[in-house]
Amino acid sequence: MSKHLERELERLREQLISQFTLVEQMIQLAVRSLVERRPEFAERVLESDVTVDEMDVRIEEECLKVLALHQPVAFDMRYLIAIDKVNGELERMGDTACNIAERAKALCLFPLFTVPEELSEMVDTSIKMVRRALDSFINCDANMANQVIEMDDIVDALNRVVIDHLQEVMKSDRELIEPAMHCFSASRHLERIGDLAESVCEEVIYLVEGEIVRHKHGLNREAERKAESNAS
Amino acid sequence: MSKHLERELERLREQLISQFTLVEQMIQLAVRSLVERRPEFAERVLESDVTVDEMDVRIEEECLKVLALHQPVAFDMRYLIAIDKVNGELERMGDTACNIAERAKALCLFPLFTVPEELSEMVDTSIKMVRRALDSFINCDANMANQVIEMDDIVDALNRVVIDHLQEVMKSDRELIEPAMHCFSASRHLERIGDLAESVCEEVIYLVEGEIVRHKHGLNREAERKAESNAS
Repeated sequence: MSKHLERELERLREQLISQFTLVEQMIQLAVRSLVERRPEFAERVLESDVTVDEMDVRIEEECLKVLALHQPVAFDMRYLIAIDKVNGELERMGDTACNIAERAKALCLFPLFTVPEELSEMVDTSIKMVRRALDSFINCDANMANQVIEMDDIVDALNRVVIDHLQEVMKSDRELIEPAMHCFSASRHLERIGDLAESVCEEVIYLVEGEIVRHKHGLNREAERKAESNAS
Repeated sequence: MSKHLERELERLREQLISQFTLVEQMIQLAVRSLVERRPEFAERVLESDVTVDEMDVRIEEECLKVLALHQPVAFDMRYLIAIDKVNGELERMGDTACNIAERAKALCLFPLFTVPEELSEMVDTSIKMVRRALDSFINCDANMANQVIEMDDIVDALNRVVIDHLQEVMKSDRELIEPAMHCFSASRHLERIGDLAESVCEEVIYLVEGEIVRHKHGLNREAERKAESNAS
């Protein structure tokens, strides 16, 4: 690999890690805003989105420039493509953090509504997934990536518990229907962050092993479907 | 461009169009299942997902192979990257069609629940977006791509109307809370299909004009946020 290409890849890698760190902070802050009822945290998340969007475009442009200029091969090419794709997943995660922040702001208007406890557990697991997805990318660690992928089942299961809980709350008091809907959306967004962390890990596995593992891991298709069909 | 590269790009283009057509059919069928209460349509959607997943992996593998083997430059490189990315969006659309199909199946268990009329309107607009996104890709038509991007505001607005409607239904009768939640999810999934069609169109614009338009079009950020904050 030429020294120049090496430098470019290193620079892109650093930019991606910064993006990862920012997005992780946004998710943390968005869920704190939700659980602790702090609308000012939600505002900070929404403000950060501009930076994520700018970095998203910059990283993508640089990936394409490096690809065109250096025409890397083998692992370097895969690495570049992985950076570009992980960058896309991070931008979606940032958007999803903003969606949670919006729900958090809306929920602050309903002081009588209590966020289900299982949601906090879901928060912990999702954030762990994002953090470990970053570690697996930094260390090109396919084992850790596989572990993250398995964690997604926990998030999905917790999401179903949260949804059942929310339905009971709605049935108990019609005044709680609107805040429960906001909470339901927040829970779905959190579940989606787990899915996006899983996508990042699939890219890591592709990078390390050269095999596309999407649609392969986990339960068989029928079992997956049944599990999903209980979650809305 | 070498004859060989030309042939490979043409073959990939054809595969992508097939994938587009299949995914569009899945969306059509999923929403028919939802609106006409036909669980057998939902089953057909879920069965098609295997094919979409297989094609997704095949197209991605071939894109990377062509990239490594032919090292295309300028428009050809952008075209190849666009195929790879649009392929990713299509796979997500297929998954989202499956999500709608699951909600449709669940809704069939509640014969007393009526799907809001605005949802049918949302269906029409989303499907139009997907179809025109395909046309804009086939014809490399950035104008049409821009029109599709503008249509997304209509889908978002309809989604908000559907959500308000569903909240009223839930408040009127607690027995309708569960089916209304399924319908709420279906509406969100449909809105997401609009977003994915928008992403495809952003790729088309990048392909034609060489400029990344993500995060640029439409209203200004503050106005966008306000619009979103009413939708869950």
